[in-house]
Amino acid sequence: MIIIMKAGSSPDQVKTITDHLEGLGYIIHKSEGVERTIIGAVGAPNLDKTEAAEQLRAYDWVEEVIFVSRPYKFVAKEYKPERTVIDVRGIKIGGTAVAVMAGPCTVESEEQVMKTAEAVSRAGARFLRGGAYKPSTSPYSFHGLGEPGLDILQTAASQFDMRVVTEVMDVRKVEIVAAKSDVLQIGTRNMQNYDLLREVGQAKVPVMLKRGMSAKYEEWLLAAEYIATHGNPNIILCERGIRTFETYTRNTLDLAAVPVLRGLTHLPVVIDPSHGTGRRELVGPMCLAAVAAGADGIMVEVHPNPDHAVKDGAQSVTLEQFASFTPQVAAVARAVGRSL
Amino acid sequence: MIIIMKAGSSPDQVKTITDHLEGLGYIIHKSEGVERTIIGAVGAPNLDKTEAAEQLRAYDWVEEVIFVSRPYKFVAKEYKPERTVIDVRGIKIGGTAVAVMAGPCTVESEEQVMKTAEAVSRAGARFLRGGAYKPSTSPYSFHGLGEPGLDILQTAASQFDMRVVTEVMDVRKVEIVAAKSDVLQIGTRNMQNYDLLREVGQAKVPVMLKRGMSAKYEEWLLAAEYIATHGNPNIILCERGIRTFETYTRNTLDLAAVPVLRGLTHLPVVIDPSHGTGRRELVGPMCLAAVAAGADGIMVEVHPNPDHAVKDGAQSVTLEQFASFTPQVAAVARAVGRSL
Amino acid sequence: MIIIMKAGSSPDQVKTITDHLEGLGYIIHKSEGVERTIIGAVGAPNLDKTEAAEQLRAYDWVEEVIFVSRPYKFVAKEYKPERTVIDVRGIKIGGTAVAVMAGPCTVESEEQVMKTAEAVSRAGARFLRGGAYKPSTSPYSFHGLGEPGLDILQTAASQFDMRVVTEVMDVRKVEIVAAKSDVLQIGTRNMQNYDLLREVGQAKVPVMLKRGMSAKYEEWLLAAEYIATHGNPNIILCERGIRTFETYTRNTLDLAAVPVLRGLTHLPVVIDPSHGTGRRELVGPMCLAAVAAGADGIMVEVHPNPDHAVKDGAQSVTLEQFASFTPQVAAVARAVGRSL
Amino acid sequence: MIIIMKAGSSPDQVKTITDHLEGLGYIIHKSEGVERTIIGAVGAPNLDKTEAAEQLRAYDWVEEVIFVSRPYKFVAKEYKPERTVIDVRGIKIGGTAVAVMAGPCTVESEEQVMKTAEAVSRAGARFLRGGAYKPSTSPYSFHGLGEPGLDILQTAASQFDMRVVTEVMDVRKVEIVAAKSDVLQIGTRNMQNYDLLREVGQAKVPVMLKRGMSAKYEEWLLAAEYIATHGNPNIILCERGIRTFETYTRNTLDLAAVPVLRGLTHLPVVIDPSHGTGRRELVGPMCLAAVAAGADGIMVEVHPNPDHAVKDGAQSVTLEQFASFTPQVAAVARAVGRSL
Repeated sequence: MIIIMKAGSSPDQVKTITDHLEGLGYIIHKSEGVERTIIGAVGAPNLDKTEAAEQLRAYDWVEEVIFVSRPYKFVAKEYKPERTVIDVRGIKIGGTAVAVMAGPCTVESEEQVMKTAEAVSRAGARFLRGGAYKPSTSPYSFHGLGEPGLDILQTAASQFDMRVVTEVMDVRKVEIVAAKSDVLQIGTRNMQNYDLLREVGQAKVPVMLKRGMSAKYEEWLLAAEYIATHGNPNIILCERGIRTFETYTRNTLDLAAVPVLRGLTHLPVVIDPSHGTGRRELVGPMCLAAVAAGADGIMVEVHPNPDHAVKDGAQSVTLEQFASFTPQVAAVARAVGRSL
Repeated sequence: MIIIMKAGSSPDQVKTITDHLEGLGYIIHKSEGVERTIIGAVGAPNLDKTEAAEQLRAYDWVEEVIFVSRPYKFVAKEYKPERTVIDVRGIKIGGTAVAVMAGPCTVESEEQVMKTAEAVSRAGARFLRGGAYKPSTSPYSFHGLGEPGLDILQTAASQFDMRVVTEVMDVRKVEIVAAKSDVLQIGTRNMQNYDLLREVGQAKVPVMLKRGMSAKYEEWLLAAEYIATHGNPNIILCERGIRTFETYTRNTLDLAAVPVLRGLTHLPVVIDPSHGTGRRELVGPMCLAAVAAGADGIMVEVHPNPDHAVKDGAQSVTLEQFASFTPQVAAVARAVGRSL
Repeated sequence: MIIIMKAGSSPDQVKTITDHLEGLGYIIHKSEGVERTIIGAVGAPNLDKTEAAEQLRAYDWVEEVIFVSRPYKFVAKEYKPERTVIDVRGIKIGGTAVAVMAGPCTVESEEQVMKTAEAVSRAGARFLRGGAYKPSTSPYSFHGLGEPGLDILQTAASQFDMRVVTEVMDVRKVEIVAAKSDVLQIGTRNMQNYDLLREVGQAKVPVMLKRGMSAKYEEWLLAAEYIATHGNPNIILCERGIRTFETYTRNTLDLAAVPVLRGLTHLPVVIDPSHGTGRRELVGPMCLAAVAAGADGIMVEVHPNPDHAVKDGAQSVTLEQFASFTPQVAAVARAVGRSL
Repeated sequence: MIIIMKAGSSPDQVKTITDHLEGLGYIIHKSEGVERTIIGAVGAPNLDKTEAAEQLRAYDWVEEVIFVSRPYKFVAKEYKPERTVIDVRGIKIGGTAVAVMAGPCTVESEEQVMKTAEAVSRAGARFLRGGAYKPSTSPYSFHGLGEPGLDILQTAASQFDMRVVTEVMDVRKVEIVAAKSDVLQIGTRNMQNYDLLREVGQAKVPVMLKRGMSAKYEEWLLAAEYIATHGNPNIILCERGIRTFETYTRNTLDLAAVPVLRGLTHLPVVIDPSHGTGRRELVGPMCLAAVAAGADGIMVEVHPNPDHAVKDGAQSVTLEQFASFTPQVAAVARAVGRSL
């Protein structure tokens, strides 16, 4: 930790800070510049440094407190140099193969899901996504079929040898959703729902953690750290667009997240261009770009009849569109040394 | 609802849309311009219009779908022309008096809370804020004292005739927190935790709903609508800063929210300049500005010794600082026809 | 300057950095922590530190380079402890009195400007704002009357003893605009038009520098520093809203800028709630809030007939509305120890 | 144009609006819903619609005014269905080949530029970028060599059969820069410097227009429209990252801009991952992603010795790094049916 004193701090004020630091177990190095004093503090390995930093920031004569080490541990690249490969009942995420996840936004009926699963699995998708419990901005919108929706997903996935990825929102539902699916999805609105993170941290299935729509990388990784510290190391990060001033697209898909996270964490990264753009015609090009950037997977909303989808029709591609761009995705994957 | 067709749509494509709309129960008006056709759709009062709009957006030849009516109802100004005044066991929020809420970020000890409550109540605060359950970006930070923290708040509030405002995060804790406090706070990270909104919608105490750090006004009001539709009309909106590119302040406090919400809703609005700025020296000026803009209350983090606060020390004012700016707040309140 | 080395940097790598720093004239302090080394560098007073920092950041084994001193000098509070009061031909900005600037967005006709000037001066405005050269997002919009517009402003201002504030955009027009007005306004789109900043830095009249719509405080102050280093110390900063994800308002008015700038600079700060909100009904409340927060002035778009204004009608208040809220502004000013 | 009246508008108020519209030459269609009236206005082909809309928005009883047609014309896809291919003295931008632009941020010396040009041309770059006039946030930074810098670029480009891309900032310098380079670059800070856009609109060489760091797509295309209306149809759009809340990267590179612009305009699109990310290790992956998304070119900052670069060292790749990732870029280009 580095503490920068305000210009003109008195020796007494500097001493208050160094005393405070030494009281916490830190070893101190002082640099006295012409204008101001800088204090380097090392050691104190077992201290909650976030808390310590907040206290130091509270002194009126402290200009700034700078963290040197990363605030997360288990999810950091330094903790585990080899990249994490997650085995979802025999299908891997994070290895050479790019995971393709596809399916409807919302489970509407068995027929809809079956038809979609058949088509997307034929086109190369090994993961079936679909919502049985749906977060909705409006209380008047459809909130999902609930448990029967989970059953429909399971039936379809099992028929086409796919794995189910589905969202859980309520801490009281983690058990049932974990029992009936393969990957628990934490949605963007719940990235900092810490009680939920703790619960899925105790689940036996992998978790896909979507980035909060205004979350910084570090906050996202700290949310993953919550899951990891509660015992679940099988975490997939999913970039789904961030909120910016641009409104033509639903969100701004931050593809730099792929190489950034490669440098910060050993966890696999999946891209969701459907929510990331909100526009069907942009989904294909963004899938290609995601794979070229090094993503470990793509997740795409597909619907047999988007014009009659209950939700997200504008960003859902048709079965035909999905089938038409997956070969291009495969070609780009090969160009960067991966496969589908 | 207005549907703008893409330039060059064929009569058949227009008909698909008008058929779709009529199938949903809408009455149609068509405007055929030189370049494109515009369809106005009115009626269909019982339809979920969000869903209907999403379906229409999904047609390839639809350029844009525009909502005309507001998507929320109970919280809209049109629903209830007189402004809502919330009675918190005899102390009102939303009337002529500006509600002053103050207290520590986190309940640390009985002594800390007692000392703070005494000082802030003497300076005019009628509401005691403090966290017993704390959301923390890092899993390694302090998460609050829990239930014993609630007891400390109750004891202090009762001694100084204050009302308790405290956060609830976990749906399983709503009952206990409601039993031991006067106003349930929903934090910024949980503004779209819909299961939690439903639970507090069934609670018997008022709810203070903080704005999500990247929530638009409409999304915020829709979150309030969740609470209202579940039976709880006693909702206070709290602006606490939004996330922008500016990093000198912790957030950007959006004071225009005060007159904006006055125009959209009958619910009272409280301003939190502590989180809104993250810097102690900005809290006083922003309290004055909030009251001048017409806020129904201010909520301020106060700590007897910010340098040793567990959390948020940099944005907490001391007991003395709080006492020194409340008279100025009162003067501005009088200047705009209010009182403290 | 503080240089944080990446974890695991070798002694040789550390030496490369300390040699580089010493080559630039710095004096070095090294802190060797368990995980990484931190280098403090002081001295080298005549060096361009931005450039030096960029070079150091470019080394692969440098994690971060942190500036300790502020990159601006003449506009910093430390450079000149007393606050700057600007004398605009006898009318002051930055003293006890709050400067009121009002007028139409665009100069349309002599009649329009005369009528407006008469009304706003009667209501207390001493500065007449109005655009003769208008920046327009679209090439097809009106770009202002040009020089004849300047003459209209001068005539009206002289009749009602007001001072003229008007925008200059083109470096080739600085001379003529300076000759025919009292304060040169630099618009939000030109805040980083460095050639223009240099030109107005050589002008003999004060400059009002609007914040760029996505400019951080530091960038804004560096833009002011450009003007100051070219010889013009009479700079007024104008906050006019920043661009965020919220679209209900045209921009998000950042009122915290007022106390923030009070802490960083000696220059006066004016608030423009018309562009800051884009909605007429929000202008009055935001004027009150601005003055309560400590602003040195407010700038308001006023039009005798906003429904027929060439530009910005939706955010222009009528002459009557302006006259109706200025007494409230005066009341708030008195409450905080100022006057109009 | 569609005008949505506020709920409860009187027939007289509606008539004021329809009269206003008819006075402007519009043909009117009225839809009277239960709650409110909607007015569709078509025709009036020669009217400045931005201005007309602003006037209508200014009526108190108008809820919203919605544009139906795009506000730009010459740069719209509808105006020119085939994609624009720009011929830069025999080298094309916008065709099948992906244009590779590379070079130092700033021209420092002939040796530096020669060495860079040799290496990047060998690796496949046909355009040499480099700054002779540099915008700098700080007045104390280096502002470029000026005209001698242009000469160095010309000499190097001519030796390796490259074309020069270089920035012009000052309207008074357009002529000289156009005489000594092949493509005039308008930087992000000058995207809305309308006088400059007009000047380059009259130049005889192509213009590369960088996106403003907080510009929406429509504003960017309107800036291009300025250039086009002044006579220069040879415009290249360059996405270079937008400003968001994420600070780990210098900007957020918006790769969705590539397919978005493909849908809106016939102009070619180039991606600048150096400014878009600000971090050398992200440049390679983002080049791959850009080409996969369909970009017509990439522009990369390259320096023989980034640790001693005057500017942007942290985002500059070395000559070796550039040479090592261009074959991968070529492989991705082939995968999507393009070449380098």
